Amino acid sequence: MSVIGEAPNAHAKIKTYHHDQISIDMHLLNKITLLLLLSSVGHSFAQPLRWEKVASGIWMTKAGNPDSVNFLTAGGVKPKMTAINAMPDVPFPLSEGEISYKLVDGKVYLRFPLETAEKIFGLGLNFKTVEQRGRIMRLHVDHYGGKDNGRTHAPVPFYVSSKGYGVFINSPTYIDVWVGTAVRKDSKNPPQVRDRNTDKSWDASPYSDNVEILVPAHGTEVYVFGGPTMLKVVERYNLFNGGGCLPPRWGLGFWHRTPTLYSDKDVSAEVAEFKKRNFPLSVIGLEPGWQSKSYPCTYQWDSQRFPEPAKFITDMNQRGVQVNVWLNPFVSPESELYGPILPFTASHTVWTGVVPDYSLPAARNLIASHFQKYLLNMGVSGYKMDENDGYDEWLWPDVTTFPSGHSAEQMRQLYGVMMQKMTAELYRKKNLRTYGLVRASNAGATSFPYVIYNDYYSHPDFITALINSSFIGVLWTPEVRGSATAEEWLRRMQTVCFSPLAMLNAWSDGTKPWSFPEVEKQVFDVAWLRMQLIPYLYTSYAEYTFFGTPPIRAMNLEEGFTSSTEAVAGEVSSAENPYALAIKKEIKDQFMVGNSLLVAPLFAGQKERQVVLPKGKWYDFYTGKLAGEGEIITVSGLDKIPVFVKDGAIIPMAQNTDPQPGSSAKVDLEIRHYGTKNGNYKLYDDDGVTFNYENGAYSWREVVVSRKADGRLTGSITQVQKGKPDSFGKVTWNFMSR
Amino acid sequence: MSVIGEAPNAHAKIKTYHHDQISIDMHLLNKITLLLLLSSVGHSFAQPLRWEKVASGIWMTKAGNPDSVNFLTAGGVKPKMTAINAMPDVPFPLSEGEISYKLVDGKVYLRFPLETAEKIFGLGLNFKTVEQRGRIMRLHVDHYGGKDNGRTHAPVPFYVSSKGYGVFINSPTYIDVWVGTAVRKDSKNPPQVRDRNTDKSWDASPYSDNVEILVPAHGTEVYVFGGPTMLKVVERYNLFNGGGCLPPRWGLGFWHRTPTLYSDKDVSAEVAEFKKRNFPLSVIGLEPGWQSKSYPCTYQWDSQRFPEPAKFITDMNQRGVQVNVWLNPFVSPESELYGPILPFTASHTVWTGVVPDYSLPAARNLIASHFQKYLLNMGVSGYKMDENDGYDEWLWPDVTTFPSGHSAEQMRQLYGVMMQKMTAELYRKKNLRTYGLVRASNAGATSFPYVIYNDYYSHPDFITALINSSFIGVLWTPEVRGSATAEEWLRRMQTVCFSPLAMLNAWSDGTKPWSFPEVEKQVFDVAWLRMQLIPYLYTSYAEYTFFGTPPIRAMNLEEGFTSSTEAVAGEVSSAENPYALAIKKEIKDQFMVGNSLLVAPLFAGQKERQVVLPKGKWYDFYTGKLAGEGEIITVSGLDKIPVFVKDGAIIPMAQNTDPQPGSSAKVDLEIRHYGTKNGNYKLYDDDGVTFNYENGAYSWREVVVSRKADGRLTGSITQVQKGKPDSFGKVTWNFMSR
Repeated sequence: MSVIGEAPNAHAKIKTYHHDQISIDMHLLNKITLLLLLSSVGHSFAQPLRWEKVASGIWMTKAGNPDSVNFLTAGGVKPKMTAINAMPDVPFPLSEGEISYKLVDGKVYLRFPLETAEKIFGLGLNFKTVEQRGRIMRLHVDHYGGKDNGRTHAPVPFYVSSKGYGVFINSPTYIDVWVGTAVRKDSKNPPQVRDRNTDKSWDASPYSDNVEILVPAHGTEVYVFGGPTMLKVVERYNLFNGGGCLPPRWGLGFWHRTPTLYSDKDVSAEVAEFKKRNFPLSVIGLEPGWQSKSYPCTYQWDSQRFPEPAKFITDMNQRGVQVNVWLNPFVSPESELYGPILPFTASHTVWTGVVPDYSLPAARNLIASHFQKYLLNMGVSGYKMDENDGYDEWLWPDVTTFPSGHSAEQMRQLYGVMMQKMTAELYRKKNLRTYGLVRASNAGATSFPYVIYNDYYSHPDFITALINSSFIGVLWTPEVRGSATAEEWLRRMQTVCFSPLAMLNAWSDGTKPWSFPEVEKQVFDVAWLRMQLIPYLYTSYAEYTFFGTPPIRAMNLEEGFTSSTEAVAGEVSSAENPYALAIKKEIKDQFMVGNSLLVAPLFAGQKERQVVLPKGKWYDFYTGKLAGEGEIITVSGLDKIPVFVKDGAIIPMAQNTDPQPGSSAKVDLEIRHYGTKNGNYKLYDDDGVTFNYENGAYSWREVVVSRKADGRLTGSITQVQKGKPDSFGKVTWNFMSR
Repeated sequence: MSVIGEAPNAHAKIKTYHHDQISIDMHLLNKITLLLLLSSVGHSFAQPLRWEKVASGIWMTKAGNPDSVNFLTAGGVKPKMTAINAMPDVPFPLSEGEISYKLVDGKVYLRFPLETAEKIFGLGLNFKTVEQRGRIMRLHVDHYGGKDNGRTHAPVPFYVSSKGYGVFINSPTYIDVWVGTAVRKDSKNPPQVRDRNTDKSWDASPYSDNVEILVPAHGTEVYVFGGPTMLKVVERYNLFNGGGCLPPRWGLGFWHRTPTLYSDKDVSAEVAEFKKRNFPLSVIGLEPGWQSKSYPCTYQWDSQRFPEPAKFITDMNQRGVQVNVWLNPFVSPESELYGPILPFTASHTVWTGVVPDYSLPAARNLIASHFQKYLLNMGVSGYKMDENDGYDEWLWPDVTTFPSGHSAEQMRQLYGVMMQKMTAELYRKKNLRTYGLVRASNAGATSFPYVIYNDYYSHPDFITALINSSFIGVLWTPEVRGSATAEEWLRRMQTVCFSPLAMLNAWSDGTKPWSFPEVEKQVFDVAWLRMQLIPYLYTSYAEYTFFGTPPIRAMNLEEGFTSSTEAVAGEVSSAENPYALAIKKEIKDQFMVGNSLLVAPLFAGQKERQVVLPKGKWYDFYTGKLAGEGEIITVSGLDKIPVFVKDGAIIPMAQNTDPQPGSSAKVDLEIRHYGTKNGNYKLYDDDGVTFNYENGAYSWREVVVSRKADGRLTGSITQVQKGKPDSFGKVTWNFMSR
């Protein structure tokens, strides 16, 4: 009941209970500290927060007494201060007086203002909605369960406002957020009182002028990010989280995962089939059966299915294919790792495996050595880290204790982040980049080379997740597994080829890219288009790394995109909708890839769809023809996924592709220009596989397309400085909208 | 991070944080108490609990330092000690050493053992499952959302074990429960380690030998109830919660709610139509439109629709009909109550109405006076108390503060209980019983005369809720609203007539009992059957009140009911069931009404169904013929709901019914006997409307059916003692299985 308001720099966080006696265990007396306790029952008073500027356009405050464990410490995040401070400065984007903070029963209550018509984005990897105003969430790492209620693979406690600012709660706890739903009695802008009996404009969700946040911890750091645009807010957030990851170039190629019990010979035959069909393949993924035991895991090769793993991997590499392996966190009693790791594991087991406390250096070192021995040293390129998210049934309960003393709740929120950090560092030590998959992520993991995936399998919702990933500093793949029809198969393949990780995951279904002969050609085409786009995609990732710009992103982050969200009045129905709840209609099925491509997938059964083109002229990617200008157009067709290009855009495309790491073969470029405007572009290049770019071994090559005196377009590209990596060969210019 | 184990009687509950300085607000120093603080980071040690026997077969312990607010105090519960202590004593039903308790970060962790094949029931009003082992729940008052995850209208933290004991956590917080899902590293009965790669018997949910409970509070009372049977456990629990409610006799008649904007004339015409068709009607329910404004509420009559409410109610009463009125907790600025109640309301509004703090006597008194003036004094018989449960969108957020200092979480868990208590007491003061509906309930409310209902509308799931209500001391009505077909209409009507509250709720759809002419006759018949069964039902409720025996209950509480739960192996599917999760099949579509009737409803579309008959002979209710004996039978037919009667059962039925309160007209009885065994029955009687029964103004009339020397059955019934209420007239004997 005690409610104690507290200034951020006060150091007393205290509570008392009413008892006549104090009885304590005497042998603990040497641990005793004297403290003054406030008895303050039933009081609740707000205290102002003191904001400290930590970088250009970024402010921090401490509400209460934060724990030392948070997203930034768990992720070992090094903010990219130079890049942030190179951004234009902006003033504190909110009225400080309208932000309120209280400590109640040892929990932090926060309130931020909302203006009329202000829109809120982010707050985790949501699958059904892009705008979050009007929603109530408990941010909780979990499998996505079909509702945007905060339980998801990356419930990042960060939101971006259409007013051009962002708020980040740096607490790895189950944070409750009321996004424009809570209405205070003392609201400055109270909703109108209406009578449901007779007033047709009665609303089941009255207007709320705030975001309220309950952090179940005795304190938390809170960050505010300035813009002025939403994209700038996101860039600042991403840079503050260490900047986006830069995958190895091969990571942007085509991935295929084989059925779980495939042997080395089965995999080899599958790869041969890809080669025979000239289907691109950069990475082959091995599912649980590579291990001697899985669920729980040994992280050791099965001697039957993979008798000579090093040889197998070398063979794969020689065929231009990287090997990625599945694992989950739970260690089998039959693993060599089991005995040593046992003291550093949780009180509970999952699937009979012990749960390492990844926050302990001793645990991490043991796992690192084991992975080094069985995986890295044999040439494994990376991991698919499964089941570090939930469901509750398949994770440790919240009554679990960990040897580090971190709570099960903190461990749940951070486990994916910590696994990413540990494994990313393993590769960094070898000066090799990795790229892989993870099921759980969160704030603090932006710089880690992992893409989120899940079991959920709605194609439209997969696109919405792709859009939402761009607000919260994570990557998402709408992986393809199976399909009911050839049409669905193609539609899904088209989408995944315009995503952070183009993967067919056949672990259970045994599908192949050519499983639907009716659309084999179209699938082949879009997979190769993916390969051709690697120079463009890789540059987009470099922008993510250097400038925090999400490589794939929501239309809402695009300048000139205006789309009003319609609230359609709901019909009252005693069975279906007793409160006549309004239904929100919003654009959640088109997105940007890099700065210039607008992708608008169709879904199985859709004969046509509408595409909202932002301001300016947009051109058809395939033909270069004008598609529209700041308008809504209708598109159709099965063979090709609709893609539109910004006026003046420059798209560098590979003419021959060689995703083999370390290859010295040059890739010839076709540089496309679309529209009528002059084009300016910076093409990123480095060695594609190491971290040498962090020490300057990279270049941004200036690409310019301009109109000559005779009206004809002409292109130029600067040379790579001597001594720096130079991946590209011959350049061909293609002015698409001539 | 601090983990402090604590003996139940230790009074230090203390935490410290590592700071160099202590800075506190000096003007608060007069509130300061000195306390010794333990610094104990990262430790976690369990402490034994000391169990205190509080009544026959009931034990209590305090884990940590419980808050003074709990279910029993909020409900003002007076345990029926005499009745409990009249029950046979039993030893403590668990091994004390296997119950574990820890205090971690100011939260209580509890663990109770589970044996192999032990089944767990209860843990809230679940709609899809009866057995709860294998489930993870967060017990949280809410609309039911389609999943048995703890969010429901009555998330009672009480479970009953097939081993014949029960556990009750007396903390109105969001309690997490892992029911046989958490597996400890140090488990005495660890699950077998299996390899999912190759072992077909790999299980996605390994065996767990405990129930783990996380109570997010610094302490809680915990109760253990002995049996030896599950029914005895439930009876002890119910009696400890004050015993079940005894509705007024009219409450067991047929209820009808009219469309929301009906005027007095509309309602009057509707009642006339019931009378004209000779359709039984005991209570008419008025929906929001009776109020001048609703959502938020004025709790005042609308002068247009109800210009003369007292006259209207008197007229209804004279026609033998009680009037029940809808309300929700949120007070409109246009209510007379608004100004006075304002200081005693929460920080937040709901639907623009203020939220009274029902824990404050001042708030309760103001509401009581207002209700007295506008409702009780005019003759309103009771309430339908809506929307005190959720959803989150339609309730105060958890950052709300209440003037009492109770947390929003506590208020959420208790609000329905407190509304029930306040309104029940209003009627008690008038020495009049009420019977009504409520959307939120919990532990502590067993004695309140309220039946839970909701918006969810699955007929099969409504039956499952009916079954589950019997484990947790609450009542539930599977109300009828609308139907797609005549068949569904009849099926639903049949079910609701065998439930605690037989109601057609036409608030939105405007349906009438005769809305489907094809089944009008059958609906008429089952509604009159309900009326005839009132003597039997009323006696069953008296057993609930006096002995804690649920009037409608799960088969699992019935002696001789054996039904093994099948776990059917699930097929692995990448899209639907990636973990090959087993599907549990259990009996959740038949239930007992009173001690002798087994009801097995059919659902729309079902041509036939199986019925599991417990041990012994069972007879068809309608014909008296033997139906089966400890076996599974198949039944079919649309006209009548399948009902079976225990061998030797005595069923008192009204021949003429007069549900009018206070009526002195005697009800003639048809006393039925089924089967071949002798029958013994106690028929309860009192005045049917007041609380005089609490002072002895009741009787249990002995009914005996035995076989005479010539083999013929004969019946006898004792007379009512002089001076006690005597409701029944002529008795006719009907030996159904002759």
